[in-house]
Amino acid sequence: MAGNSMGVLFRVTTWGESHGPAVGAVIDGCPPGMDLREEDIQKDLDRRRPSGLPWSTPRGEPDRVEILSGVTEGRTLGTPIAIMVRNTQARSSDYESLRDIFRPGHGDYTYHGKYGLRDHKGGGRASARETVARVAAGAVARKVIARHGIRVTAFTRELGGIRAQKTCLEYLEENVLRCPDPEVVPCMLQVLDQAMKDGDTLGGVVEVLVTGCPPGLGEPVFQKMDADLAWALMSIGSVKAVEIGKGLECARMRGSQCNDPMTPEGFLSNNAGGILAGITTGQEIWIRVACKPVPSIRKKQWSVDNNGNPVTLQISGRHDVCVIPRILPVCEAMVCLVLADHLLRQRAISP
Amino acid sequence: MAGNSMGVLFRVTTWGESHGPAVGAVIDGCPPGMDLREEDIQKDLDRRRPSGLPWSTPRGEPDRVEILSGVTEGRTLGTPIAIMVRNTQARSSDYESLRDIFRPGHGDYTYHGKYGLRDHKGGGRASARETVARVAAGAVARKVIARHGIRVTAFTRELGGIRAQKTCLEYLEENVLRCPDPEVVPCMLQVLDQAMKDGDTLGGVVEVLVTGCPPGLGEPVFQKMDADLAWALMSIGSVKAVEIGKGLECARMRGSQCNDPMTPEGFLSNNAGGILAGITTGQEIWIRVACKPVPSIRKKQWSVDNNGNPVTLQISGRHDVCVIPRILPVCEAMVCLVLADHLLRQRAISP
Amino acid sequence: MAGNSMGVLFRVTTWGESHGPAVGAVIDGCPPGMDLREEDIQKDLDRRRPSGLPWSTPRGEPDRVEILSGVTEGRTLGTPIAIMVRNTQARSSDYESLRDIFRPGHGDYTYHGKYGLRDHKGGGRASARETVARVAAGAVARKVIARHGIRVTAFTRELGGIRAQKTCLEYLEENVLRCPDPEVVPCMLQVLDQAMKDGDTLGGVVEVLVTGCPPGLGEPVFQKMDADLAWALMSIGSVKAVEIGKGLECARMRGSQCNDPMTPEGFLSNNAGGILAGITTGQEIWIRVACKPVPSIRKKQWSVDNNGNPVTLQISGRHDVCVIPRILPVCEAMVCLVLADHLLRQRAISP
Amino acid sequence: MAGNSMGVLFRVTTWGESHGPAVGAVIDGCPPGMDLREEDIQKDLDRRRPSGLPWSTPRGEPDRVEILSGVTEGRTLGTPIAIMVRNTQARSSDYESLRDIFRPGHGDYTYHGKYGLRDHKGGGRASARETVARVAAGAVARKVIARHGIRVTAFTRELGGIRAQKTCLEYLEENVLRCPDPEVVPCMLQVLDQAMKDGDTLGGVVEVLVTGCPPGLGEPVFQKMDADLAWALMSIGSVKAVEIGKGLECARMRGSQCNDPMTPEGFLSNNAGGILAGITTGQEIWIRVACKPVPSIRKKQWSVDNNGNPVTLQISGRHDVCVIPRILPVCEAMVCLVLADHLLRQRAISP
Repeated sequence: MAGNSMGVLFRVTTWGESHGPAVGAVIDGCPPGMDLREEDIQKDLDRRRPSGLPWSTPRGEPDRVEILSGVTEGRTLGTPIAIMVRNTQARSSDYESLRDIFRPGHGDYTYHGKYGLRDHKGGGRASARETVARVAAGAVARKVIARHGIRVTAFTRELGGIRAQKTCLEYLEENVLRCPDPEVVPCMLQVLDQAMKDGDTLGGVVEVLVTGCPPGLGEPVFQKMDADLAWALMSIGSVKAVEIGKGLECARMRGSQCNDPMTPEGFLSNNAGGILAGITTGQEIWIRVACKPVPSIRKKQWSVDNNGNPVTLQISGRHDVCVIPRILPVCEAMVCLVLADHLLRQRAISP
Repeated sequence: MAGNSMGVLFRVTTWGESHGPAVGAVIDGCPPGMDLREEDIQKDLDRRRPSGLPWSTPRGEPDRVEILSGVTEGRTLGTPIAIMVRNTQARSSDYESLRDIFRPGHGDYTYHGKYGLRDHKGGGRASARETVARVAAGAVARKVIARHGIRVTAFTRELGGIRAQKTCLEYLEENVLRCPDPEVVPCMLQVLDQAMKDGDTLGGVVEVLVTGCPPGLGEPVFQKMDADLAWALMSIGSVKAVEIGKGLECARMRGSQCNDPMTPEGFLSNNAGGILAGITTGQEIWIRVACKPVPSIRKKQWSVDNNGNPVTLQISGRHDVCVIPRILPVCEAMVCLVLADHLLRQRAISP
Repeated sequence: MAGNSMGVLFRVTTWGESHGPAVGAVIDGCPPGMDLREEDIQKDLDRRRPSGLPWSTPRGEPDRVEILSGVTEGRTLGTPIAIMVRNTQARSSDYESLRDIFRPGHGDYTYHGKYGLRDHKGGGRASARETVARVAAGAVARKVIARHGIRVTAFTRELGGIRAQKTCLEYLEENVLRCPDPEVVPCMLQVLDQAMKDGDTLGGVVEVLVTGCPPGLGEPVFQKMDADLAWALMSIGSVKAVEIGKGLECARMRGSQCNDPMTPEGFLSNNAGGILAGITTGQEIWIRVACKPVPSIRKKQWSVDNNGNPVTLQISGRHDVCVIPRILPVCEAMVCLVLADHLLRQRAISP
Repeated sequence: MAGNSMGVLFRVTTWGESHGPAVGAVIDGCPPGMDLREEDIQKDLDRRRPSGLPWSTPRGEPDRVEILSGVTEGRTLGTPIAIMVRNTQARSSDYESLRDIFRPGHGDYTYHGKYGLRDHKGGGRASARETVARVAAGAVARKVIARHGIRVTAFTRELGGIRAQKTCLEYLEENVLRCPDPEVVPCMLQVLDQAMKDGDTLGGVVEVLVTGCPPGLGEPVFQKMDADLAWALMSIGSVKAVEIGKGLECARMRGSQCNDPMTPEGFLSNNAGGILAGITTGQEIWIRVACKPVPSIRKKQWSVDNNGNPVTLQISGRHDVCVIPRILPVCEAMVCLVLADHLLRQRAISP
């Protein structure tokens, strides 16, 4: 109910500010008797860490996960799983000059407006650091759905306007951008490099593929699978658009093109993206999200301070040039969390 | 929690099958002492009714709303408001031949897979008739937010591939498609006409504009305003994509272009669409949704029956050629419902 | 979330004022494919109706139930089940003189305080008529749990200070008070008669017995089975105390007396009332609730009006002398609803 | 929704096993800008700690609270407040012999039945250690309601069958049992002493008094204030009965005795305990709960092991002879949490 929770049966609550002592999550509703070790979670957290490459933030904390409850002798108890990651490299001094200034493109102005005060250090709760908790919780959800054969993979469809034309998933692990088109990777790296030199940032498009999903997941009317997926992905700070299946393209098709014909051997196409009337068909689920460029740029910007006075600012600090590829495990986590919840809900009513 | 409810404080539950006795909604949490009469709701329901034009369904029931509780002597009591609209023109015989056949593009196959049985008559719960209840509940939400100066308007940005280039909102009431670009309307009507002649259907793009929204609505992390809006709109049967502000376009901008600079006089642009870090800025909110073509086409299609045997089908029945313009009040209703809920939530914590 | 709903997976929302057009409920989450007909619900509603005996209200409407959705051809669809009962015998004129007067022991004063206005006719939402919707929804829950062998029976333990010493359940159907002790029934009837003659009312104690409940239902910490049962029963207007198992008596036992020893053949006693650490043991569940006397008495009472002026009032209208026995099906309904919800929740995580 | 959370707007999730690394809580929905320091929470935690007297457990960990998020520079941010208390004195070796044995009166058997496995060490999640998190969260709720003048006090009404006849609240701080009747304290201490010598345990009755509560808190029908209070208190492990106002006694009154007459100066009595139709009247709220004796006794008991074989056991370990007085701050915490939630909910709709 409150704004920091999601899910009905696989329910996750996250907490933590960027420069507070820690960030974390509580998972309530994980099935009992499942193997779970800190390594399972650490693996996904490591994928979210900075790459060490020049256009990635140098904030390089190890993000060691601690499981504080809900697991004994390597197995889940059915009770809440509390997960914590200490913030060890917060450099709050970087933000002292921004204490009273609203950074454009960030939540500074809206948090101040909503709450009447805000944690200016590193963006506080609105920082992308919050996604550490999502990825940690998502790693648990990933294990839950994997037991039913469901697998979730995110990759880079587009970066800085450069689009992957091919979809060679076997190529994902072989490039730092997890781009499925080998030919465009050098070009993507080049625009990243140029943006960095310009003190500017880039956006991109992420695609998420779900395989092995059984038919029947999703609820009628409001908690449709596509609605919940859209919600989960749009809740990631930089996401500005979500498409399911052929998405926007469907608006330009005729019904006779868009409908996916069925045969005894299965569907002949998948424009719907694996979801019909909000419920999974058993086909692959395809989702696409558009991410805006990182708002922290080194270029000079106009803004105002807490008192409404005009200021110009130049953001130094430690920032990524693009949310890709670090946002990929975050997208996967959100999709895993939605699927785990719907999977449990379907079990409650299935014969 | 269950799939047919939405909202935390302004909580709506809808019910009803297309060919059952009625459809309806219960609204729990409407503030007390607000004027509310059946006419307030009827007005929006009438906007959702078929237009009478050739490419609109001839299912022409009057959709008279009944308020069954929560209102006395024209004022809301603070107790649940139950709303019902009888289904008076269901022609279930139209569907007898489809009892065992899965219509492509519809929920027949997935409902059958999920529940092990389904109401084949008119699509049952998965029918667009379900949106009667949304529009009725949305009309109450519209009154709640109007008291705080918030106004929600949906219009047609694109239809059958024809795009409105201009945004003349004063023109909306003057054409049956609620298109803000007078010049493209004839063209839109022509593609509708052609699709109808072909026994085919069309999709389109709807845009929703919110004015008068105060800053500070929306919650951190999961129940961000943009996440909740994406969820609400994606929960409409034919919606396949949702964009906030400049949406997909942001992915191709640089940070220096995408950030909206602030001055003492306000923001200099609105690429974010009125939402930053999930919380409203006080600017206009702009949302765009892509709708797939109506799946009920008169052309011959391939499918299977309940037993997996191949069939071909041609859908007769009474269907629209395009969900536009009837989907416009549905989109408005969903946005009103989300805003009403967040408005009440913000009141709970505001000083 | 909102105040008129209960349950997580078997979720019920009720609506309706005593003198409004109707009262009703929406059940979201009922498993699909279950036989359900209006007669199933009517049976329990009939048990809630006035008995026709002198100390029972003469408000004698038939309370015919209508199922408006969620059922087709006699089977549940898995979609929301909307249930409605029209109010046909509301005599609002009886209440005109009470428009501005707060009746002692009723919710008039608190509803006015909470909402700033109230429906004075028949108590509005705070009327016991609201329990029609609970009983109707409970009848559906009763069917859900009956499929798993669970049965819920409420009976009269005490009335007007007269206590049933024996517990002969086979005697319940044979007396109008559903009292399990044949010897005290004449005495109970006598105190009822005397109270009626005095223009006064009585309270009593109801006991609820659950048989056939499997072990493992209930959640740790907050949504313990006993906590949810206490909540559900305390939500009935006249209930002022809830005891589980030996209840209050436990406070006076020593641990060595109170603990229920276990043997390979099962527990040797049931002081706990079938629930340990909030989770069912598989034994019988015993619950006891204390009901206050009906607050509508014919004797003269002191009160105040909306403006704080002193008034004396004498309530005429049509009222029961005691909530027993009409409250018995209401207590059963609440227990059935809680059990149905926990049963579905347990299915979601069971191996 | 999941079993370890409570509240709608002031929402608390707790986690932790008795012998795990820590126990904790996340509070989502605390109003922003409120002073909050670790000392505020520590104060209540210290009241929950063992007294050091002979009939109190010697498990003497300091229970130092850490605030991990949601507070900056001593003020709440409006974001989730995560609280953690490390378990520093768990002696799991005490429990090794109980690994496969179900202790009578504990949750061992039911947790095993529900989840198929359990944390046998110190009772795991079912341990009273879990209430550390409740008390910590309750301390924050206490601050929220104190800002509106509401105060919550729990005291000992009865212990081991000895009843406090007087209610001298000014005496509470002067005796270790927080008993309001000076004359019975020596007697209570004597029965405690005797039970300890016998290797046995005692139960008791706790009373909770709420002062300063405004009228209008509570929701109709299901989320009545009394229902939510009953639920919150019954969710405490050892509670077996809850009474509101005169409670059980009401069942033996006539309507003319039980109704609280109103005058321009206020109510003339308070049999209802400050709640009418589920909504607060503005009077004092009186609640009484019965606590069973501590189930861990040193006497020999019969039970079974995981495989159903008969065993006899004698529990050593470190245990209290009675939950009183340590349960008093837990009862206060639960009442504070319910009031804080309803207070925020009422703010959302109040004019």
